[in-house]
Amino acid sequence: MTELKIALIGFGVVGQGLVEILLEQKKELKVKYGLEFSVVAVSDTIKGSIYDETGLDIQKLLDLVKETGNINDYPNGVKGWDSLKTIKETNSNLIVEVSWTDIKTGEPAISHVKAALKSQKHVVMTNKGPIALVARDLLSLAEANNVQIRFEGTVLSGTPAINLGLNNLAGSKISKIAGIVNGTTNYILTEMEKGLGYDEALKQAQDLGYAEADPTADVEGYDALGKIVILANVVMGGNLTKDQVPRQGITKITVKDIEDAKKEGKRWKLIAGAEFKKDNSIEAYVRPEKIPLDHPLAAVTGPINALTYTTKYLGDVTIVGPGAGREATGFGLLNDILDIYRYIKK
Amino acid sequence: MTELKIALIGFGVVGQGLVEILLEQKKELKVKYGLEFSVVAVSDTIKGSIYDETGLDIQKLLDLVKETGNINDYPNGVKGWDSLKTIKETNSNLIVEVSWTDIKTGEPAISHVKAALKSQKHVVMTNKGPIALVARDLLSLAEANNVQIRFEGTVLSGTPAINLGLNNLAGSKISKIAGIVNGTTNYILTEMEKGLGYDEALKQAQDLGYAEADPTADVEGYDALGKIVILANVVMGGNLTKDQVPRQGITKITVKDIEDAKKEGKRWKLIAGAEFKKDNSIEAYVRPEKIPLDHPLAAVTGPINALTYTTKYLGDVTIVGPGAGREATGFGLLNDILDIYRYIKK
Repeated sequence: MTELKIALIGFGVVGQGLVEILLEQKKELKVKYGLEFSVVAVSDTIKGSIYDETGLDIQKLLDLVKETGNINDYPNGVKGWDSLKTIKETNSNLIVEVSWTDIKTGEPAISHVKAALKSQKHVVMTNKGPIALVARDLLSLAEANNVQIRFEGTVLSGTPAINLGLNNLAGSKISKIAGIVNGTTNYILTEMEKGLGYDEALKQAQDLGYAEADPTADVEGYDALGKIVILANVVMGGNLTKDQVPRQGITKITVKDIEDAKKEGKRWKLIAGAEFKKDNSIEAYVRPEKIPLDHPLAAVTGPINALTYTTKYLGDVTIVGPGAGREATGFGLLNDILDIYRYIKK
Repeated sequence: MTELKIALIGFGVVGQGLVEILLEQKKELKVKYGLEFSVVAVSDTIKGSIYDETGLDIQKLLDLVKETGNINDYPNGVKGWDSLKTIKETNSNLIVEVSWTDIKTGEPAISHVKAALKSQKHVVMTNKGPIALVARDLLSLAEANNVQIRFEGTVLSGTPAINLGLNNLAGSKISKIAGIVNGTTNYILTEMEKGLGYDEALKQAQDLGYAEADPTADVEGYDALGKIVILANVVMGGNLTKDQVPRQGITKITVKDIEDAKKEGKRWKLIAGAEFKKDNSIEAYVRPEKIPLDHPLAAVTGPINALTYTTKYLGDVTIVGPGAGREATGFGLLNDILDIYRYIKK
């Protein structure tokens, strides 16, 4: 296979973010990495569906969404194919799964990904739901069908968290992974350290768009929980389910707790961690921890994320970068596509 | 090719470090990554040379070096082959180049690597000399001979600095790389911040084995210079030579400078950097800089190293980890071997 023929399932913020980067980089991707691609299909339950086996005009799609909110006025191609028909019946060989996230069931994304793998098409995705729930099944299914699946963007958006552990630290004997994997709570804790109360800091995070109107998923640690389950299962080879992982959020941290930590030369962080126990089982958790100021994680402030891998041969290796954002997440998909391309092009 | 047949050119601290890890991990490497290997030859100008096409007993080699300082009493195999004969005429298919470093000429390592690539053998190495001088030539030679060359350990020992830029950030549009790439100077600056004068801090670094008796290469920035040239040329696609890069060490930093920075909420670090200018040329430098305390590099203290990649799509991504050490550098070689294996096994 020399050319990637991409179908996007979903065309929201992340899908559009990817497509913008693809458009901007088309020439450079070919010169630098040899990557040739076309986007042959887009299928979105709200914005509409278009399929053209010879390739769609990406700029036109982006313009249409900006102007009309949908892609129904696209001049050529076949219209109206739903997600599964688009996955199975287009001439695509790589599916970008960027439909919505249902963290409880993982649907419809799980069905999309399974259909794609069974159709022997590669998959890239940033949707935490399916990976937190059934990562191992999907990896096995990909292997059985001799195709690749990548999902770097599910943990720290495009910041290389999963690939760092899987590839760059391969052979280092990872004993523990722990870090700051939720930007909203890290922003709130950073603001509380500057003197705000919890409610004020949350309000500020909401005003800036870091926190949602219902902040439960972030502040109670559910988002972090999904991410540490992914890391434990995918990087450490575990088989955890979310209900096996104790979870504590930041809602009970008071201004006094923050002050007390400061006096000890420490700083509160919401830590998601997973480590091997003596019996080789994996124990994972999400909880606020007081981190010494000279630890790299203590220096990670505001909405930035970070992960520390504890290894036998390197000791601690920490990666720090963004954990969210349209471009950062879009880049995660691009990097996954490049990684698959590097893998299959030989 | 299913089995890697490894020949080590050099059997000093780093070579022994690698071999210890290989021995310890043999089973796990097979189960986890499918890697099967044997060490068929070791050639060291001081410790002796052994070749056995059916594979050497690694434990025996390590024991012999520990007991006798050389490997001359190894019971089987052919003895006395020099480096080039070992590279060319053994049945090895992967050469681990860990001979000594001559930072000015890059020899004899450059000759070793060229001979290996021309013999269509893969190469892994941690020797900065050849890579700082002729990285592009060696990469071209590898490509022309359809073999792989890896040298992650040349910059931050086993901490993934090069592969992070080349693979995990591929497509992110890197505009700048800057970081702390010399542990000795970072240790000295950290101790000076605790109140020591430069001479005392240097003495302490020497007592701990971080600094050599002649500390020039570290404190005057030559070591950092070689590393930033590697990053600029290999990751950013530059073509710099060392004499094009302005270099300033830490010897002129006074206790007063340290205090003044503290008052500004900053901290002195020896920074090696490279960035694209408007005309798309690359400007590199090694110089002390005052880093704001809320920047991830400011939190990197003692002998630890770190690099920040500034990218278009992710903003800043920083990696923090060890920059030296027997195990860390040995791991760099192992990870390079695994990366080559992943690449060629398909």
